[in-house]
Amino acid sequence: MLREELMKMLDGREDDMIALRRHFHEHPELSFDEKETAAFIARFYEDKPVDVQTNVGNGYGIIVTINGKQPGRTIALRADFDALQIEEQTGLPFASKNPGVMHACGHDGHTAYLMVLADCLIRLRDQWEGTVKIVHQHAEEMAPAGAKSIVDSGLLDDVDEIYGIHFYPDHEVGTVFYTSGYAYAGCSDIKVTIQGTGGHASQPHRSNDTIVAASSFVMNLQTIVSRRINPYDMAVVTIGSFEAVGSSNVIKDSLVLRGDARYMDLEVGKVIEEHFHRIGRGLEEMYDVKVEIDYNSDYPPLYNHPKETAKAAAVLEKHGVGSYLNQVIATSANTGAEDFGQYLLKIPGAFLNVGARPNQVEVFNNHHPKFDINEKALLVAAKSVADITLAALAGE
Amino acid sequence: MLREELMKMLDGREDDMIALRRHFHEHPELSFDEKETAAFIARFYEDKPVDVQTNVGNGYGIIVTINGKQPGRTIALRADFDALQIEEQTGLPFASKNPGVMHACGHDGHTAYLMVLADCLIRLRDQWEGTVKIVHQHAEEMAPAGAKSIVDSGLLDDVDEIYGIHFYPDHEVGTVFYTSGYAYAGCSDIKVTIQGTGGHASQPHRSNDTIVAASSFVMNLQTIVSRRINPYDMAVVTIGSFEAVGSSNVIKDSLVLRGDARYMDLEVGKVIEEHFHRIGRGLEEMYDVKVEIDYNSDYPPLYNHPKETAKAAAVLEKHGVGSYLNQVIATSANTGAEDFGQYLLKIPGAFLNVGARPNQVEVFNNHHPKFDINEKALLVAAKSVADITLAALAGE
Amino acid sequence: MLREELMKMLDGREDDMIALRRHFHEHPELSFDEKETAAFIARFYEDKPVDVQTNVGNGYGIIVTINGKQPGRTIALRADFDALQIEEQTGLPFASKNPGVMHACGHDGHTAYLMVLADCLIRLRDQWEGTVKIVHQHAEEMAPAGAKSIVDSGLLDDVDEIYGIHFYPDHEVGTVFYTSGYAYAGCSDIKVTIQGTGGHASQPHRSNDTIVAASSFVMNLQTIVSRRINPYDMAVVTIGSFEAVGSSNVIKDSLVLRGDARYMDLEVGKVIEEHFHRIGRGLEEMYDVKVEIDYNSDYPPLYNHPKETAKAAAVLEKHGVGSYLNQVIATSANTGAEDFGQYLLKIPGAFLNVGARPNQVEVFNNHHPKFDINEKALLVAAKSVADITLAALAGE
Amino acid sequence: MLREELMKMLDGREDDMIALRRHFHEHPELSFDEKETAAFIARFYEDKPVDVQTNVGNGYGIIVTINGKQPGRTIALRADFDALQIEEQTGLPFASKNPGVMHACGHDGHTAYLMVLADCLIRLRDQWEGTVKIVHQHAEEMAPAGAKSIVDSGLLDDVDEIYGIHFYPDHEVGTVFYTSGYAYAGCSDIKVTIQGTGGHASQPHRSNDTIVAASSFVMNLQTIVSRRINPYDMAVVTIGSFEAVGSSNVIKDSLVLRGDARYMDLEVGKVIEEHFHRIGRGLEEMYDVKVEIDYNSDYPPLYNHPKETAKAAAVLEKHGVGSYLNQVIATSANTGAEDFGQYLLKIPGAFLNVGARPNQVEVFNNHHPKFDINEKALLVAAKSVADITLAALAGE
Repeated sequence: MLREELMKMLDGREDDMIALRRHFHEHPELSFDEKETAAFIARFYEDKPVDVQTNVGNGYGIIVTINGKQPGRTIALRADFDALQIEEQTGLPFASKNPGVMHACGHDGHTAYLMVLADCLIRLRDQWEGTVKIVHQHAEEMAPAGAKSIVDSGLLDDVDEIYGIHFYPDHEVGTVFYTSGYAYAGCSDIKVTIQGTGGHASQPHRSNDTIVAASSFVMNLQTIVSRRINPYDMAVVTIGSFEAVGSSNVIKDSLVLRGDARYMDLEVGKVIEEHFHRIGRGLEEMYDVKVEIDYNSDYPPLYNHPKETAKAAAVLEKHGVGSYLNQVIATSANTGAEDFGQYLLKIPGAFLNVGARPNQVEVFNNHHPKFDINEKALLVAAKSVADITLAALAGE
Repeated sequence: MLREELMKMLDGREDDMIALRRHFHEHPELSFDEKETAAFIARFYEDKPVDVQTNVGNGYGIIVTINGKQPGRTIALRADFDALQIEEQTGLPFASKNPGVMHACGHDGHTAYLMVLADCLIRLRDQWEGTVKIVHQHAEEMAPAGAKSIVDSGLLDDVDEIYGIHFYPDHEVGTVFYTSGYAYAGCSDIKVTIQGTGGHASQPHRSNDTIVAASSFVMNLQTIVSRRINPYDMAVVTIGSFEAVGSSNVIKDSLVLRGDARYMDLEVGKVIEEHFHRIGRGLEEMYDVKVEIDYNSDYPPLYNHPKETAKAAAVLEKHGVGSYLNQVIATSANTGAEDFGQYLLKIPGAFLNVGARPNQVEVFNNHHPKFDINEKALLVAAKSVADITLAALAGE
Repeated sequence: MLREELMKMLDGREDDMIALRRHFHEHPELSFDEKETAAFIARFYEDKPVDVQTNVGNGYGIIVTINGKQPGRTIALRADFDALQIEEQTGLPFASKNPGVMHACGHDGHTAYLMVLADCLIRLRDQWEGTVKIVHQHAEEMAPAGAKSIVDSGLLDDVDEIYGIHFYPDHEVGTVFYTSGYAYAGCSDIKVTIQGTGGHASQPHRSNDTIVAASSFVMNLQTIVSRRINPYDMAVVTIGSFEAVGSSNVIKDSLVLRGDARYMDLEVGKVIEEHFHRIGRGLEEMYDVKVEIDYNSDYPPLYNHPKETAKAAAVLEKHGVGSYLNQVIATSANTGAEDFGQYLLKIPGAFLNVGARPNQVEVFNNHHPKFDINEKALLVAAKSVADITLAALAGE
Repeated sequence: MLREELMKMLDGREDDMIALRRHFHEHPELSFDEKETAAFIARFYEDKPVDVQTNVGNGYGIIVTINGKQPGRTIALRADFDALQIEEQTGLPFASKNPGVMHACGHDGHTAYLMVLADCLIRLRDQWEGTVKIVHQHAEEMAPAGAKSIVDSGLLDDVDEIYGIHFYPDHEVGTVFYTSGYAYAGCSDIKVTIQGTGGHASQPHRSNDTIVAASSFVMNLQTIVSRRINPYDMAVVTIGSFEAVGSSNVIKDSLVLRGDARYMDLEVGKVIEEHFHRIGRGLEEMYDVKVEIDYNSDYPPLYNHPKETAKAAAVLEKHGVGSYLNQVIATSANTGAEDFGQYLLKIPGAFLNVGARPNQVEVFNNHHPKFDINEKALLVAAKSVADITLAALAGE
C-alpha cells in the first residue's frame, strides 16, 4: 500500500523535481559558498512537520529529520548541492546565471530529486515507522569537504544505514550501477614546500639548490608505488605541479610541489602517506633543506558495505527492474573521488550510480562545460532511493 | 712629449667625463634599445676628422676610426653603453629618468671616459702613428649580445690589439686589477622544453608525465659536472627555473626548464654542451617525451692574452703607479660573464678592471639598485687606457 | 561403472604411488639434466600398449599417448619431474642421494601419482573413448623451461583440454584450491650488461662510469611500475643483483644487473618489457655506454580458462567432496611462476592446487631444504585428476 | 768545502746505492709487513754513531738521528720502504723473489739513496752544525698509512724542516720537478654498508630494497661535486664498487659500496665528508635502511710549503743545474696520493719529484708490473737532497 502510494505520488511530482533542478542549475554556487542554495532548501522545509538543522558542519550543511508514525530504524539519505568553477557552455535555457560557476556534476539533480522524495515521505509519514534523516550536503567538490564535518557533528550518530546516488551520463536512463566494496578511490591532496638557500648560478656551494632537491624528491617518490605497496593493491602518486619559476642564472631558494595520491584501501593510503613523509624527512637531511608537507586526505576510498549494497541491489532488482528500471549492474571501481566515503567509514550503507544519458549524440562527462543530465533520471533516482529507503526502514 | 700632453689634456677634461657620465646615467636604455644613446654618441663625433660607422652588428654599435699622422699599428678600445632593467634607488640628482631602467653596471662611465679619451687622441692625432678604433658597443648585458656581431662585421679585422676596462666599486680608486689568461667565466643560457602527454592523476599509464621526466633530467645533469669534466677545470651547470605550474590532480603535459652553464675554458663549455644534449636525447628515449634544447653560448670565457696583459700591466706599473695609480694587482678570475671575450677570441688584447669605490660606507655591487661608481675613477680609467694605447701604438 | 572401477584401482595402487615418489625423491636431478629420471619413466611405459615419445622439446620431455576404445576427445595431463639445487635437510629415510640436489617442490609426487593414474587408464582403456596424452615434463624450474618447447613440438596440437596440479603443504590433505583466470604471475628473467670505460677514480672525465649509469637506470626503472602500468594491474620490477665488484679507486668499466618482472596479464608484461628496453636505450644515449638486455619471458602468467576451471571444480564438488575431498575452494592468485601457463596459452584447461600438509607441527614451504609433502595427497591428486579426466573425455 | 766533499763522497758511493736498491728490489715486502726490510736497515746503522729508533708508529718505522758538530737546526729526510701486491714482470736479474710482491713504485730506490746519503752525512758530521733525522717510513701504500703514526710519535716534534723525493720514470734523469702549494691530491677511502630487508622479488612491500636505496644514494652523491664544492676547487667522488651480487628474483637485503674522494684542499675534503655523511643519514630516513659509513682520510692533500719549496728549488738551480741536473721545473699538481702530506701538516718542507726514465723505448708508470727506474737517478736524488739539506741546516 505505502509503496504503491509513494510511487504514484512521485510520478505526480516529476515536474517539481525538474523545476527544482532547473532552479539550482540556474543559480549555482561554489563549494563553501552555497548561501542562497542552502537558504532556498531550508525555506522548502519551513512549514513542514520536520526538524531542520542548518549550518551543519564546516559550511551550509542541512539535516532534515522526518519522524514516521512511531520509532524504529533511522535511515539517512544524502544529496550534495555545490557547483564547480566552470564556465557553462551548454546553451540551455536555464544555464547558469552565475558566470564561471556551473552545476557540471549533477548535484542540482541530486538535491532536486531528494527534496521531492523527502516531501513525499513527510506527507506519508503516518504510514511508515522509524526516522529518515535527509542530509543536504555542502562542499562535496572541494577539500576539506563537507561530509566529514557533518559526520563529526554527531547528528548522524543514531543512523542505522545511509544511502546516496550519483548521476552519470555515460549510462542509459533506467540503469543503476554499483560496486560492492571499494567503489571510489581515496584521494589525498598534498602540498610540499621546500625551502633552501638561493644564490648565483655560478656559486652552487653557497646555496642549497631546491630544484635539485625537489627533483631527487620526485624520483625517490616513485619508489612508494614501485616498492612499498602490495602489487595487487591500487596506488598512484602523482606530482602534478612543480612550481619553481625563476631566472636561469639564479639558484632557486624555495619552491612548491603539488601532488595527489589515489588508493582503493584506507590502509594503502596510510602506507603512501607514511612513506611520503619519510622521504620528505630524508630529503631534509640529504639536502639540508626544510620540507613542509601539507597532506590532506579528505576523500577516503568509498567503501560500499557489501551487505547493504547487496540489499539495495536486491530491492531494485525486485521492485525496479521491469518497472522504472531496465537493469541493475555491478561494475568495477571508479578512480574518481567522492566524500560520501566519509559517511561509510561510520555508518553502513551504499552509494549507487544512476544512468542519466541525455538524448544528444555526443555525451559530455562530469566536469565538462557541456555536461548535462537527462531529466528523466530524476524520477528514476527518486523511485530507486524510495524503494531502498522503505526496505531499510522495514529492516528487510 | 705626446704622453705628457695627453695626460695634461685628460686632466683638463675630467669635468667633461663626469658630465657625459651623468648624462648617460640619467638617460639609460636597455640592451638592443639604445637608440638615443647611440645617436648622442654619434653626434659627439659628427664634426670630428674621423670615420664613424653606426648600426654596426646586431644593434646600435658604433665604430669610430681615428688615423694618426701616418699608418702604423691598429689598436681598438672598447666601451659598452647599454643599461639594465633595474629600478634605480640611488637617490642621485642625476638618477635615471627612465623608470625601471638603470645604468647599474658602470657602462655610463665606460662610455664617458672613452669618448673624452677618443677626443683627446683625435686632437693629438698628428703626434702619433697608426690607427685607433673606438668601439662603442651596444647590448653587452643581454644575449645574443653585441660583441660577436661587431667582430663578425669584419670592421675589426685589421686590429692588432684590443683593450677594454670595467669599473668595480669593490676596489679603491687608484687600483687597476686584472687576471692573465681566463679572467671571466664563459656562460651559456639554456632553455629546455619537454613535451609529454597530460592526463588525470589517477591514470599515469595514459600519460607521459613530464614532471617525472624533467626530475630525472635534472638528476642526470648533475653527472656532467661530477663525471664528465676534468676535476681541475671549473664548470657549473645550474637549472634555475623549473616551470611546471599545474593542478595537483592533472599530470603535466609540458614544461620548461631554464639553466645556465659556466666554465673557464671554451673546451670545457663544449663538453658541457655535448653532454647536455646527450642527456636530453637519452631522456627523449627513456620517457617517450620530446625534448627541445635551445642552447646559447654568447658569452665565451674571457681569455686575456698573457703577452698583451703583461705588457699592459707593465706600462701601468711604469707610468701609472706613483702618478694616477696606487697599485696594479693580479687577481683570480671572476665568475661573472663579459662579452668582451668575443673580441679576444680573434684579437690579442686584455680587459682590465678599474677600482671605483664610492666614498659611502656601504658598497653596492654591480647590478644593485643602489650601485654607484666613484667618478674620480673616470680619469684613472682614461689615463690608464691612454698609456696602454700609446704603448700599443708604439709596438712596445 | 568405469569411474567406480578406476577409483577402486587407484585405491589399490596407493603404495605404488608412494614407492615411485620415494624413488624419485631419492634420485633427484637438476633441470635439463634429468637423464636417469626420464629413462626410469620411459622404462615404466616400455611394455605397455601406448606410444611413447622421448626427448621431446629442449630436454628429456616424454609424451605418452593412450588411446581409448575408440576416437574421441583428446585430453592432456601434465606432471613435471625436475629437482632443485638445494641441500636436503629433511632427514627422511629416502632423502636425496644426490648431494646438493633435492625434490623440494613436490615434482617427485606429481610424477608418481600421474604414472600410476596413466597405468590405470591404460588398463581400463577399453572402457573409455578418446585419447589421453600424458606429458612428463622436464625442466619446469629453470629458464628457458620445458613447457614452451613441448608446445612448440606440435605433439599437443590435437589436444582439446589440458590439466595439471601442484602440491602445496600449506593446505590440508583433502583440499583442492584454485583460481579462475590469472592464477600464477607471469615472470620475466632479465640480464642487463652495461659496458662503459674504466679509469682511475681521479679521472672521471676519461671514463664512462657504469656504476653511475646503472644507478640511474635502477632509479628510472622505478617509473615503469609507478607511471606506465594501469594502477589496477599487478606489476613488479625488481633488480635483485647489481654485480659491480671492484676497487674503490677504479671507475668500473662494465657490470651486470639481474632482474625480475612479475605481472598477472600478458599485456602488462609486454608494457614492462617495452619500457625496460626503452629505458635501456635512453641510458645508452645519456651515458654513452652500451646496454645489452637479455629479456626472457619463459613463464607467462598462468591463465586458468574460466570454463574448464569451472567444469573441473564442479566435477570435484560433485564426485570428490564427501568422498576423497573435504573442500574445493577458490583462492586468490599466486605470485609464484609456473610454466604450465605456456600450455594454457594454446590449449583450454586448468591448473589446480592440491593440499599436502604433512603431519609435523612446522610446515616448510616449497623450495625449503626441509620441504616435504604428505604422501596421502598422492591418492587425492590421482583421484581428482581421474575424475576431471573422465569428465573431460566425456565432453561434460 | 763541506759541499764539495759530500758530493765527491756520494760520487764514490753510487755503486752502494745501486747495490742497496737491488737488494731491496729483490726482497720486497708488503705494507705493514716489512719486517726483514726494517731489520736490514736497522743493521746498516748498527755500529754508527747515531741514535736509532725502531718500530716507530704503527709499524716498522725507523728514525735515525745524526747530530752534527754542535746544536743547530733540525732537518728531517724521509724515504719509504714498502712494496706492492703486484706480480713483477720486468725480467730483471734482481727481480722480486717474493711472489706477488714487487717494488713497483721506486721505494727501493728512495731508501737506497737515503741510506747512503745518511752514511755520508754521518761520516762528515763534524763539518756541519745541527741535527739530521733520517725517517725510514713503512707502509706508505696502504691505509692507515705510516706517516701519520710517525708524526704522532712525537719524535719529529723538534724538526724545523722536512724533505722527501719520489722517482718518476716519465721524466728524464737529470730533471727535478715540483709543485709549490698543493701538489698531490688528498684521498679518502670510503666503505658504505647498507642494510635493508630481503624478500621475494614479487613482494617488494615486505622488503626494504637495498639496491634501489643504494642507486638513489649514488645519484644523490653526484650533487656533492656538482652543487656543494666551489667550482674552482678540485673534487672527485667515485663509487668504484657496488657489491650486491644476488639472485634476480630475490630482493637484496644488504650490500656494500666502496668509494674514493679526491681533493686538493683539506677544507674541500671536509665538505665532501660532511655531505657524504649527510646523504647517508638522509638515505636511512628515506628508505628505512641502516647505512654505515667507514670514512678513512689517511692521505691528506700534500701541501708543499711555498717558502721551503722555493728555497729547495733555488738551491737546486744554483748548485745542481749544470752539474748533476739539467733542469728544475715547476709542474702542475698530481692526482695521485702520497702520505708525505701528513708530515707537511705539521712541519714546513717540500716533496720533490726526481726524473728516472729508463733507457727502454717504452716507459711503464708506477704500479705497473714492468715498472723500473733508471739507477742513474739514485745519485741525482742523493746529491739533490744533499744540497737541500746543507742549505736547510745552514738556515739559508
